[in-house]
Amino acid sequence: MRTRAAVAIEAGKPLEIMEVNLEGPKAGEVLVEIKATGLCHTDAFTLSGADPEGMFPAILGHEGAGVVLEVGAGVTSLKPGDHVIPLYTPECRTCDYCLNPKTNLCQSIRETQGAGVMPDGTSRFSMLDGTPILHYMGCSTFANHTVLPEIALAKVRKDAPFDKICYIGCGVTTGIGAVINTAKVEIGSKAIVFGLGGIGLNVLQGLRMAGADQIIGVDLNDSKVEMANRFGMTDFVNPANVTGDLVAHLVELTGGGADYTFDATGNVGVMRTALEASHKGWGESIIIGVAPAGAEISTRPFQLVTGRSWRGTAFGGARGRTDVPKIVDWYMDGKIEIDPMITHVLSLDDINKGFDLMHAGESIRAVVEF
Amino acid sequence: MRTRAAVAIEAGKPLEIMEVNLEGPKAGEVLVEIKATGLCHTDAFTLSGADPEGMFPAILGHEGAGVVLEVGAGVTSLKPGDHVIPLYTPECRTCDYCLNPKTNLCQSIRETQGAGVMPDGTSRFSMLDGTPILHYMGCSTFANHTVLPEIALAKVRKDAPFDKICYIGCGVTTGIGAVINTAKVEIGSKAIVFGLGGIGLNVLQGLRMAGADQIIGVDLNDSKVEMANRFGMTDFVNPANVTGDLVAHLVELTGGGADYTFDATGNVGVMRTALEASHKGWGESIIIGVAPAGAEISTRPFQLVTGRSWRGTAFGGARGRTDVPKIVDWYMDGKIEIDPMITHVLSLDDINKGFDLMHAGESIRAVVEF
Ligand SMILES: NC(=O)c1ccc[n+]([C@@H]2O[C@H](COP(=O)([O-])OP(=O)(O)OC[C@H]3O[C@@H](n4cnc5c(N)ncnc54)[C@H](O)[C@@H]3O)[C@@H](O)[C@H]2O)c1
Ligand SMILES: NC(=O)c1ccc[n+]([C@@H]2O[C@H](COP(=O)([O-])OP(=O)(O)OC[C@H]3O[C@@H](n4cnc5c(N)ncnc54)[C@H](O)[C@@H]3O)[C@@H](O)[C@H]2O)c1
Repeated sequence: MRTRAAVAIEAGKPLEIMEVNLEGPKAGEVLVEIKATGLCHTDAFTLSGADPEGMFPAILGHEGAGVVLEVGAGVTSLKPGDHVIPLYTPECRTCDYCLNPKTNLCQSIRETQGAGVMPDGTSRFSMLDGTPILHYMGCSTFANHTVLPEIALAKVRKDAPFDKICYIGCGVTTGIGAVINTAKVEIGSKAIVFGLGGIGLNVLQGLRMAGADQIIGVDLNDSKVEMANRFGMTDFVNPANVTGDLVAHLVELTGGGADYTFDATGNVGVMRTALEASHKGWGESIIIGVAPAGAEISTRPFQLVTGRSWRGTAFGGARGRTDVPKIVDWYMDGKIEIDPMITHVLSLDDINKGFDLMHAGESIRAVVEF
Repeated sequence: MRTRAAVAIEAGKPLEIMEVNLEGPKAGEVLVEIKATGLCHTDAFTLSGADPEGMFPAILGHEGAGVVLEVGAGVTSLKPGDHVIPLYTPECRTCDYCLNPKTNLCQSIRETQGAGVMPDGTSRFSMLDGTPILHYMGCSTFANHTVLPEIALAKVRKDAPFDKICYIGCGVTTGIGAVINTAKVEIGSKAIVFGLGGIGLNVLQGLRMAGADQIIGVDLNDSKVEMANRFGMTDFVNPANVTGDLVAHLVELTGGGADYTFDATGNVGVMRTALEASHKGWGESIIIGVAPAGAEISTRPFQLVTGRSWRGTAFGGARGRTDVPKIVDWYMDGKIEIDPMITHVLSLDDINKGFDLMHAGESIRAVVEF
């Protein structure tokens, strides 16, 4: 079949909207009509050429929602008409990782996914002249139709709006999951969130849901305050307005350091501050942000010997097929909010404007509706 | 009263054996006759002058065992004749730290302990000319008699030999506790221990007790192998004999990385290797070693985002009054071994020879018997 897609032809160039060929699903695969997709920093990172693992031409996008149109041989958990959210972290439920309760990093299709192809080693997408186009993060949601492995699709309820729940495919789950799956924050905790963008706001609402008492937001941009307050922030700190040491200021504000701190900036200096602002004896600092290639974190080991832990999270520690449908329920039940974070809705033709808005810091989430 | 002690007069000089004055216990304090004391690297570190918090003159030593001679007003948990092990990490059972199950770092007397004095701000020790001598780590076990706060003494059974159980006051508890309290190693785990000295050997036997399947020891010194095998090591790696990348070698040897790794060297480069040789998704790396002043650990944050945790431990996460008596029982019941690690027994007059043996790498533990 043919479908319309925004194709990343090469690094550093705008996406090109075009018709492409899409082969039907092979065994274990599913054809999905994408109804909406969010634009995330990871897409921009790859498109910029800064991602050392980026490959072109490719169809980017990994934060989508849509409807199953057709299933390949052997697919048992999905059927045409099902509503689904693509998962860049799949959940096969049989690999060593899926069977270890300590991790969500299913490895069953990691190599082919990293190579931009389906598990059989080939791509379903091609240019009209036959040139293959690579898949991206196993999702490629910047296309009106895409093919994914069955294990990389979460089945969700049919009454949930695509243009909101697509955000659960990455940002919402990453932020909330960091709190509830990775940190396992307890009622009454004190927490600090560094970076109040699309991820940080979801960390805030995860903390509110988990019953944290003090939820401090830290951002260089004062314009983030209003939205952050709405998502549960109790105190705001702009490092530019702190005279003296930021760690000392945060330790004082929390009465000894935070029980949990989260980096949602991707800045390695901020990651160190986050660790050191966590409480002696039991503070845990969780890295969510993705740092520039080659950047390193550092600290004195004494920080760890005196009881702090340094950890990280990918996709919020969530097992997608199991956890994503629950988060959709939380949204539909009003336990979490998504609507105010979707600041821009665009057509596929305008997708490059969405990246401009992101780079200008004007959007929290721009969503493309098909 | 008067007692004999090895006094650290100034940094970088040998200890001087002399008579000193010792005041009796004030309220909440206990006079202990020290029967035996181990010599630990921390004592040597302070004596060398490299410890930025070191102060002189002081009576060093923090790994002792002895008998209660007299108790001050208000002491209820100890009486003359009780056998005790001094605790450089006390356990008051009432401060915010003691009441938080996540930490063992009782803070109730931290400031005065750090300043080399008893909780009332004064020292019990002085030279015969009246010059005050400072306490060290709240213990000062390089004296035949010493005074400690009640909360800094673990009461232990009377049939346990002082010259062996003194080692439980630091090394044994630190190594075993890192495994069972901090890492909480599960049966069947794979583990790597870096550094097979007085701490590392105890990590090995902690792992054996916890039921680990693979226990890899890493040391630059081949002469450590025989003793390490005795304490549970299943595989030995000398980095000097590994061609190529040490992390890659260890990941291959463990089939993907270790579930738990431990640094017992104090070398920040080794700490990084230990983290990176832990398993993607769930590996935990525990820092036990104390690094030189100012040294920093570093890694790419991706190591943490993909599921590794970086942690540390002080006194093996043990709550001394509660846990040390249990470890004494384990020794008496034959669940753990101590005797082969006590390689040298000296008189107080020969204590400086003990430090020479340590620096020459000839002793695991030298113990002074009074
Ligand atoms: N671990 C994962 O699974 C995962 C998933 C998605 C995104 N991410 C990463 O999370 C990070 C945040 O993503 P986002 O979409 O929220 O980005 P964003 O640009 O929307 O938000 C980042 C925020 O950090 C603030 N900031 C930047 N530098 C700062 C500093 N030095 N101190 C304080 N605040 C600072 C900015 O003002 C902004 O508000 C990115 O690195 C992204 O790649 C990780
Ligand atoms: N965290 C705590 O509560 C605590 C308590 C006591 C001691 N410590 C620290 O634990 C560390 C170990 O103490 P110890 O008494 O066992 O010392 P040790 O000198 O007896 O043993 C250290 C071992 O490490 C080996 N080693 C050195 N560099 C190495 C390298 N690059 N690679 C591999 N092996 C290497 C040495 O050959 C030696 O066998 C010290 O830093 C000490 O200060 C920490």
